Order: sequence, then structure tokens, then C-alpha cells
Amino acid sequence: MTERPSAAPSERTRVKRLHENAVYDPVAVAAILDAMPVATVAYVIDGKPFVTPTLQWREGDNIYWHGSAASRMLESAEDAEVSVNVMILDGLVLARSGFNHSVNYRSATIFGTARKVTAPAEKTARLARFMELLLPGRWASLRPMSDQELKATTILSLPISEASAKIGAGPPKDDEADYGWPVWAGVLPIRLEVGTPEPCPRLAPEIAKPDYLDSYRIG
Amino acid sequence: MTERPSAAPSERTRVKRLHENAVYDPVAVAAILDAMPVATVAYVIDGKPFVTPTLQWREGDNIYWHGSAASRMLESAEDAEVSVNVMILDGLVLARSGFNHSVNYRSATIFGTARKVTAPAEKTARLARFMELLLPGRWASLRPMSDQELKATTILSLPISEASAKIGAGPPKDDEADYGWPVWAGVLPIRLEVGTPEPCPRLAPEIAKPDYLDSYRIG
Repeated sequence: MTERPSAAPSERTRVKRLHENAVYDPVAVAAILDAMPVATVAYVIDGKPFVTPTLQWREGDNIYWHGSAASRMLESAEDAEVSVNVMILDGLVLARSGFNHSVNYRSATIFGTARKVTAPAEKTARLARFMELLLPGRWASLRPMSDQELKATTILSLPISEASAKIGAGPPKDDEADYGWPVWAGVLPIRLEVGTPEPCPRLAPEIAKPDYLDSYRIG
Repeated sequence: MTERPSAAPSERTRVKRLHENAVYDPVAVAAILDAMPVATVAYVIDGKPFVTPTLQWREGDNIYWHGSAASRMLESAEDAEVSVNVMILDGLVLARSGFNHSVNYRSATIFGTARKVTAPAEKTARLARFMELLLPGRWASLRPMSDQELKATTILSLPISEASAKIGAGPPKDDEADYGWPVWAGVLPIRLEVGTPEPCPRLAPEIAKPDYLDSYRIG
């Protein structure tokens, strides 16, 4: 989704780590987070690294993710240091040498200590916001959440205070002597596409397809 | 890519860890790895978790990934325990309650100790195979790799011996009492699409577009 209504990141969002292709702009970090809900969370158990995919969403200077209160990932990440990455593949970059092949992509990584959202009212507000960011208007139309469901849901938050963005874009960058090599070179673009909505087999025929299904974008 | 010519995983590929939606079949793990080169590698530095996206490829019972010999991720992962995840998002599953919303996806995670591929001949063979799996026939048409480039490239391998696959598919699974709730429910399918190849601005006009660009699939 390219235009989420979430607040812009504030100036306190600092981007500390630098890598090749690194972008310091916190707006770039936020744009990547807003474009792609799929994230991977890395955490440590007994000194060993684990990585679990999940969905994240951003509200201002924080990201959130959630799941079952019984999730080992959520239990292990609470009050612990984590690293969260969001990666969007934009294409394969085909150069004249194998060495100069690369990918076009947008990647954001956030480091920090994850905290649990505990107040029930805040949990409900966070979940409603997550749905609103994905599918505006849907939350209010759903069967309301029960206290039991809310208790069974853990939400973690992580401040976007230590983050890096890396972006690769554009045509291949070959060694100058290689540009004349007789092989096709360029970019094979890749993007996420949203297909035709597939109604639940038990959906009542009189229920119309909401507009937010047609306007949904990802990546 | 759904039909890579790589060898099938052998019987020694054991799938040990179990989660919700877990699939034990090593063929399922291999199918996910073969369909999606983008992976995230989790590793530990000074007790802290890090996660870095990269491209992986499978050959038999091993996966490989590579990059600059100066990469902190590759340096930190060598001879160290890592966790590698490949995640393919297949759709948003819209249920009648917020709680029963989910995603359709295919996810594979491999745990183990990464090893560096050191022999130059093996390194070259691995890289050639990687290219062959992505774009059959391209490797032989490239400007050959130099010794210096090979030295500047680190390749890590990880056996697919401790792995899990998780797959979510199908329509929403609502609470029985919720099926009559008057809201649209179903699946919003999402898939990766390959776009029209974009020639390098410096490509000589007589160079034809190779067939493998049109047959490339991902996800």
C-alpha cells in the first residue's frame, strides 16, 4: 500500500546504522514499512538465532506485530532485543558479468527491545488501526472482538529509533570494459499483484463485495 | 519458479520442529525454497539478533547464499548457528471476526550451522548453478568470472537437516456462530508477477531478448 493515512515519522526517528546502499531518511524507512506488512522477526533463545515471519504495521514512530499469546516468537521477543526486517523485491538486475548481477529492492531493518502492549483498550485500538491500514472501513463491520480473544492475542511494539533502509534501484552497473559484452542486460521487474477476491464458499449471496478489496495494494 | 531441475531432497532431510500448520514433508520444504529465492538470515552478534535479507538457492539437501566477502552477515554466520526463513505471501484471509483473520502463505525455516564454501572450483560451480536455476543458459553467455571476483565472493551453505514448513491455505475458518455475520469474507489473493524486461540503457540494439526472460517465474 503506498498511501497509508498513518502519521509521518517524527524527527526523533534516527537512523543509525549504515550499510552499502543505506538510506538515512526516516521517511524512506516508514515508506518501506507502510508498503509491505510482511516482516521477519529475529530473536534469540538460549543464544541461538530464530527468525519468524509475521505481519507488522506502523503507527507513527513504532511498529507493531501480533499473534497468539502462546506464540514462542512473541514470548521470546517480549522485553528482549529483536531485529525486524521488511524486504520488498523489485526486480532482478542482469548484468554482463555474474559478479555484477544484483537485485532491485527496498529493505528496512529495525533494531531494539520489543515491549508488550498490555492495556486492553490500547490493544483493541492497535488491532483496529492495523485493520484500518489494510482495509479501511472493515473493522467496524466485523463481529466485535471478545474479551477472551483479546486476552489470547499478544501485541508487541518496537520503536523505530534504530533503523536502516537499503534500496537498490536502476539498471545494471557493469564494469566499464564489460558494457560491450554481447549478452542481454537489464532489469526483470517483479512486483506483488492483488488478484480477484475469492468469496468464502459459505458467504451469503446477498453480501456485496466492499470497495476496499479493489483498492488494496501491497508492495 | 515452480519447476527447478535441482535434485530432490533425500531421505536424510529430516523435519524436526513442529508448529501450528507445520508440514513434515521435506518435499514441501524444498518446494518453498525452490519457489522463492528471497530469504532472511538470522544470526547472533554479541548475543544480539540480526536479520539480513539475501537470495538463497537449493542444491539437493543444502541451501546456499552468497555476497561480498566483506559482508558482516556472511562473516558473522560462518561456522555459526543461523536460522534462514523463506516466506511467500499468497493472500489475505478475511474472516467475519478480526480474530479469525489470517494470511495464506508458504514459509520454510532452516536451522543449523553455516559453513563457507572454500574451494574455488566448487565456488564457481555453485554460482553457475545458482544462475542456472534462475535463468537457464545465461551463465555461459556472461563475461567469465575473474579470480579476483571469486575471491571477493563468499558463499555459505546450510544443510536442510533441521527444518520446518508452515503453510496456510484456503478460505477463512470462522467460528461456527459467525458464518451468518453480514460482512464479506473470503480471500484476497496476492502473488508475485514478473513484468516486462527493461533493457539496460547501454544495451546494443542488436542484442535479442533471451527466452529465459519470458519463462522466469517466482513465488
